[in-house]
Amino acid sequence: MADIQALIQRQARRVTSYDVASLAGVSQSAVSRCFQPGASVSKATFARVMEAAKALDYTPNAAARSLNTRRSNQVALLVSNLVTLHYPEIVTELSRHFSGHGLRILLFSFTDEGDIDRTLSEVWQHQIDGAIVAARLGPQQVAEFERRAVPFVLFNRHLRERVVNAVVCDQAEAARILVSRLAAGGHRRFALIEGPRGSVVAQDRSRGVSARLAQLKLAPPLIVRGNYDYDSGARGLREIIATLGAPPDAVICANDLTAMGCLDCARHDFQLDVPGQLSITGFDGVPQAGWLSYRLTTVRQPVEQMTLAVTEMLTDMIAGGPGRPQQRVFAATVVDGATARLGPAF
Amino acid sequence: MADIQALIQRQARRVTSYDVASLAGVSQSAVSRCFQPGASVSKATFARVMEAAKALDYTPNAAARSLNTRRSNQVALLVSNLVTLHYPEIVTELSRHFSGHGLRILLFSFTDEGDIDRTLSEVWQHQIDGAIVAARLGPQQVAEFERRAVPFVLFNRHLRERVVNAVVCDQAEAARILVSRLAAGGHRRFALIEGPRGSVVAQDRSRGVSARLAQLKLAPPLIVRGNYDYDSGARGLREIIATLGAPPDAVICANDLTAMGCLDCARHDFQLDVPGQLSITGFDGVPQAGWLSYRLTTVRQPVEQMTLAVTEMLTDMIAGGPGRPQQRVFAATVVDGATARLGPAF
Repeated sequence: MADIQALIQRQARRVTSYDVASLAGVSQSAVSRCFQPGASVSKATFARVMEAAKALDYTPNAAARSLNTRRSNQVALLVSNLVTLHYPEIVTELSRHFSGHGLRILLFSFTDEGDIDRTLSEVWQHQIDGAIVAARLGPQQVAEFERRAVPFVLFNRHLRERVVNAVVCDQAEAARILVSRLAAGGHRRFALIEGPRGSVVAQDRSRGVSARLAQLKLAPPLIVRGNYDYDSGARGLREIIATLGAPPDAVICANDLTAMGCLDCARHDFQLDVPGQLSITGFDGVPQAGWLSYRLTTVRQPVEQMTLAVTEMLTDMIAGGPGRPQQRVFAATVVDGATARLGPAF
Repeated sequence: MADIQALIQRQARRVTSYDVASLAGVSQSAVSRCFQPGASVSKATFARVMEAAKALDYTPNAAARSLNTRRSNQVALLVSNLVTLHYPEIVTELSRHFSGHGLRILLFSFTDEGDIDRTLSEVWQHQIDGAIVAARLGPQQVAEFERRAVPFVLFNRHLRERVVNAVVCDQAEAARILVSRLAAGGHRRFALIEGPRGSVVAQDRSRGVSARLAQLKLAPPLIVRGNYDYDSGARGLREIIATLGAPPDAVICANDLTAMGCLDCARHDFQLDVPGQLSITGFDGVPQAGWLSYRLTTVRQPVEQMTLAVTEMLTDMIAGGPGRPQQRVFAATVVDGATARLGPAF
C-alpha cells in the first residue's frame, strides 16, 4: 500500500516530463527534446516517448510546458502607454525580433510607472519565460524577479543601486551634446517643454539640459510642463511666449511629437521663422521627424540596435540561465535637421 | 483496489477544480469563484476550498487555470505588420480595452496575410481564451477556430461565404463617398496610389474608388503601387507625373501616411499648390493627418468604437459562450481637411 500511496501522492501532482521519461525508460531531456521543434531525437525514442505521454495524458502544449518545464514561449513586455502611444514602433520591433526566436510578446501596458506593483501582481499570474521592463523598478521588485528566477531586461531604465540587465540610451549625454551645439550656435535664452511627470526618460532629458546649461554658465531654462504629445508642443510654446513676452532663442522639447506641435504652432500661429527667429529641437528620432514638412533637428535613439540588444540578452538568459548582469549603453546622435542653428560639437 | 485504481486513473489526470470541490464538499462553481478576483464567496467556503486546494496541490495560477478550466486570461491578436507599423494605435487601444477585463494581449504579428496558416499553427501552441484576427481567414481556418471552440472576432476583415463575428469599417462605401465628393468638386482626372498587395483593406479601398469612377462614367484612375508608407507617397506622385506628363486633378492615396508623403512631395519637390492645382486625399484619419502642416482631407475609421466593439463581442463570448455570429459594420466619415476641393455629398 505504501507504494500505491506514494503513487497517488505523486500522481496528485501534475504529470511531468519526468513521469513520461520514467515510463518510457528514457532520460527527461530526451522527453523534452521530443516536444521541442527542431531538436534531435531518434525515431525509436520518439515513438516510446509518445506512447508513454499518451498513457499518462501528458499534454505537450505551451501551457503544460510552462508547468512542467517552466517554458511558455511567452515574454512579458511591461511598457507605459507614454511609450506605446508616442513611440509605438518599439512594440512592433520587439515583437518582430522575439518571434524570430519562437517567443511571443504578452503585452502589459499601464499609464503611470508608479503602478508597476499592481501590474507585476498580474504578470505573476502568467507563466512567462522572461520580461522586458520599460518602467522604473525598485530593488524590491528586482528581488522579486530574482526570487522567481524570471530573467528580465530593463529597457531605457536602470537601477541606481546596482547593475542589473539593462539596455539604455544615454539621455543625459544626449542632452549635453544638444545643449552644447545650440550654445555654440549662439543661443542664450532657452526654454524647455518637459515630458509627463511619470516618465523617467523625460526626467533624465530635462535634468541633462539644465545641468549642461549650468555648466556653460547660461541662465536656467524656462520650464513648462508637456505631455509627450503634439498638442502639448503648441500649448507649451504659447505658455512660453506669454511668460517671456517674446520667443526665446531655443525651445528644447522632451520628445519629437512635442517638437512637431511646437514647430507647427510657431510657423502657423505665430508666423515665426524657424530656425531664423527660433530654434526648436526634439528627442527620439521618430520616422515623422524626417518628413519634409518638419526635417526636425533632434537626437536619435538607436531603437533598432536597442531592441536587438534586448532580444539577444533576454533570449540568451532564457536559453542558458542568468549570466553576470550587464548594462548596455547606446549613444544617441544629433540629427542636424532644418529647425535649429547648431554650432560645432565641443 | 478498483477504487484505488480509479483514483490513480483519475489522479493521473491533472487536479481540477472538480477534485477540489469534491474534497471540500462544495460545488465546482464555488471553487471557481474562490479563484476569481472580486467574485462573491462566503468566508467559510473560502477556507474549506483553500484547505482542499492545498491538500491536492491545486495551483490556481493562470497557466493551471488554462488546463483546468481552459481559461488563460490571454487573447491572441493576429495582426499584420502592415497594420501595426502604419496604424500602431490599434494595438495600444486593444491592449487598453482588454486589460480592463483582466485579459492580456498575446501578440502575433506577421508580414504577409498569406502566412496566416503558419501563424495559426503557432497560436494553437498557446492556451488562449479568444482571438482578434486582423488577417484574411478562409472557411477552413474558421472551421479550425470552431473545432477548437476558440471564440474569435475578425477586425476589418469578413468572410465572403457566411457571417462570422466581425467588426468592419465599410471601405467600399467610404471610397464611394470620397470619389463622389471629389467629382462634385470638379475633379475629372484621377490617380490612385494603391496599398501593398498583401492588404485586404487596401484592395477594398482601390476597388471602391474604381467602381465609383466607373459608375460616374469618369475615366478609370491611373493606378500606381504603394506600400502604405510615407516614402511610397512621394515615389507614387513622381511616377504619376512622369507617366501623365502633368499632375492629375486628384491623387487618392490608400492610407494617410502615403498621402502625407505625396503631399510633402507635391509641395516641396514640385512646388504645387495643394489643393489649388492638385487635390490629395488619404484614408484612416490617423492623428498625424490632423497636424497643422497637413490638415489632410481623409476618410476616418472610427477606431475607438471599432476596438471597443471587438472587446465587447469577444469578452461576451469568452464569458458566455458563442452566441449567433454577427457582423458590426461601422461607417467611415469624410474629414474635410485642407488638401482637396470637395463638393457636396450626393
